[in-house]
Amino acid sequence: MIDRLKWKINYLDILDQRLLPSQIKYVRVKTPAQTAKAITDMVTRGAPLIGCTGAYGYALALKNKTFNSVPQVHKTLTDAHKVIKAARPTAVALMYAADRMHNAYVKFEQSGGFKKFDKSAVKKLSNLLDKEAQAVFDEDVKANALLSKYGAKLIKKGSNVMTICNAGALATAGMGTAVGVITQAFKEKRVNHVYALETRPYLQGARLTMFELMTSKIPSTLITDNMSGHIMKTCGIKAIVAGADRIAANGDTANKIGTYMLAVLAKYHKIPFYIAAPVPTFDMKIKTGAQIPIEERSVCEVTKIHGKNIAPKNAVARHPAFDVTPNSLITGIITENGIISPVNAANVAKAVNKK
Amino acid sequence: MIDRLKWKINYLDILDQRLLPSQIKYVRVKTPAQTAKAITDMVTRGAPLIGCTGAYGYALALKNKTFNSVPQVHKTLTDAHKVIKAARPTAVALMYAADRMHNAYVKFEQSGGFKKFDKSAVKKLSNLLDKEAQAVFDEDVKANALLSKYGAKLIKKGSNVMTICNAGALATAGMGTAVGVITQAFKEKRVNHVYALETRPYLQGARLTMFELMTSKIPSTLITDNMSGHIMKTCGIKAIVAGADRIAANGDTANKIGTYMLAVLAKYHKIPFYIAAPVPTFDMKIKTGAQIPIEERSVCEVTKIHGKNIAPKNAVARHPAFDVTPNSLITGIITENGIISPVNAANVAKAVNKK
Repeated sequence: MIDRLKWKINYLDILDQRLLPSQIKYVRVKTPAQTAKAITDMVTRGAPLIGCTGAYGYALALKNKTFNSVPQVHKTLTDAHKVIKAARPTAVALMYAADRMHNAYVKFEQSGGFKKFDKSAVKKLSNLLDKEAQAVFDEDVKANALLSKYGAKLIKKGSNVMTICNAGALATAGMGTAVGVITQAFKEKRVNHVYALETRPYLQGARLTMFELMTSKIPSTLITDNMSGHIMKTCGIKAIVAGADRIAANGDTANKIGTYMLAVLAKYHKIPFYIAAPVPTFDMKIKTGAQIPIEERSVCEVTKIHGKNIAPKNAVARHPAFDVTPNSLITGIITENGIISPVNAANVAKAVNKK
Repeated sequence: MIDRLKWKINYLDILDQRLLPSQIKYVRVKTPAQTAKAITDMVTRGAPLIGCTGAYGYALALKNKTFNSVPQVHKTLTDAHKVIKAARPTAVALMYAADRMHNAYVKFEQSGGFKKFDKSAVKKLSNLLDKEAQAVFDEDVKANALLSKYGAKLIKKGSNVMTICNAGALATAGMGTAVGVITQAFKEKRVNHVYALETRPYLQGARLTMFELMTSKIPSTLITDNMSGHIMKTCGIKAIVAGADRIAANGDTANKIGTYMLAVLAKYHKIPFYIAAPVPTFDMKIKTGAQIPIEERSVCEVTKIHGKNIAPKNAVARHPAFDVTPNSLITGIITENGIISPVNAANVAKAVNKK
């Protein structure tokens, strides 16, 4: 799969996913603020991948600059921490990555890294942050592979499956979460055919998931979101797999708008409904999905397609970018620590705390 | 509301709904074949309206032409009957209108209308067919008004409601079916706010329903289809009203793709789900929805928007234009003969046979 991020130490090239599949271009960022803007503007997307992007973006804070004092470093990194975390509100992997990077810095300072403040100390901190960012990335690659293996086992031989949005390689550092599970299951002859929801308004399913599935030569069919019920009823769907942006301590899951709809439809059709997500997707500080902030994006993303209006001028619209699926509708959550099923607070805690 | 059809006896001007809301243009048709093509190409749409269009289109068969024999008239009208009926497969109002027009002709001939074949006999038949087409149109106007009144009573004061596709004035000869009910209910202060699903791939909700609601100054919000579950859960939706393309004798209902999804979501959220449709929408010859032919339209309508690809080239897609909602998911069917509830074969027969 094409590189989503090209980390060049002094800058980061981010694949512009808004242009896929028709164009392959990178946006170069050199500062945390530029990185945050790229995340906000959806140059890159997908919860695990924006976590990785945020980690590299934090590390950029110390590049291309000279520092003269500890307070200057402190302010720069505190600002980086804030700006990265604020880039998008729902995916907790971003907060996880930003906090992890900032904690690495705090630990460095607290353990006397700046006892003597000079260029080499800053360089040492910078190298340490680079390594931490790389670790966030590498751990996601590993988690993807592991959870994909666990998840594939849940799918019966020769199944037709369905997925929404893009929780594939393009959303992660590795082989993907939901699409990772499907890809692994296809290799094991468990998946026969994939139905991909186009996923309005951003069309990540049409643009990105179809691109990935076709690249991997997995038989696949694009459908509009409103066909999902009809396809479940008429095309023998045996499993639905989706990604996640944030999972509460009880397993309630925020993911791309439409995931909740799919879960309700799956329940009615008695089709297993799975969430695939690495451990950094869990937010154990919140008890239920009701506490997950849902990003409300620009309504222009709904009322315009390719820059042209699809509705009357001045039409009022909504654009909640995510919704919350209650744990009761989720058959299992697939993580790198195994499957959480049934989905409840005790089982979530067990999986998340597993080393 | 703007004229959907301008009947000028020797030709018919059809509002090109593909261009709404940005342009108001008419396509002029002078023959049944041209009329059928306009229906197939979705210049006009909406089950009741394509019925009316088909009726006028049939009447055009005798215009701008001279006839020399009864067999010539017979062949011309038999061809018109066939070509109109074949224009689109799902909406039974089209078959109803074409059959009704053809029966009027057959009755004319059988009752000796051509005992003496001359210009004036053809003119007489032509006038009779014009009147029959106008009656199809006028009856729809009346049915819309009646069913809207009955339907409005089902909606509690101050309700937020939801609808899919466009079952409004632009889909009918009159004030609409589902949107007719909503409009009437708004006048009676029963409707507070309307959520309109954009309805991919043709975007009739975004383009047409929003246009109608805004014209009528009814507070309304456009949502993507995949937001429907989230909006039901979070915005206090009290009723969902949709139109219909064909209703089987047991009440199973074919309507725009996505209607079935909405009905399942309504059931889960315990929201009443209504179908609004005039009697010509019922096909009493078929027992259940399984026998309703579902039109599969071009996948280009899914993979391209405004002529530009939204998916990788050569992506496989599906485009069933309709789906079937089982009677068990329908709280009531709103007709000009009253409400069918509970929806079952006996109640459907009672309503349809009522004079």
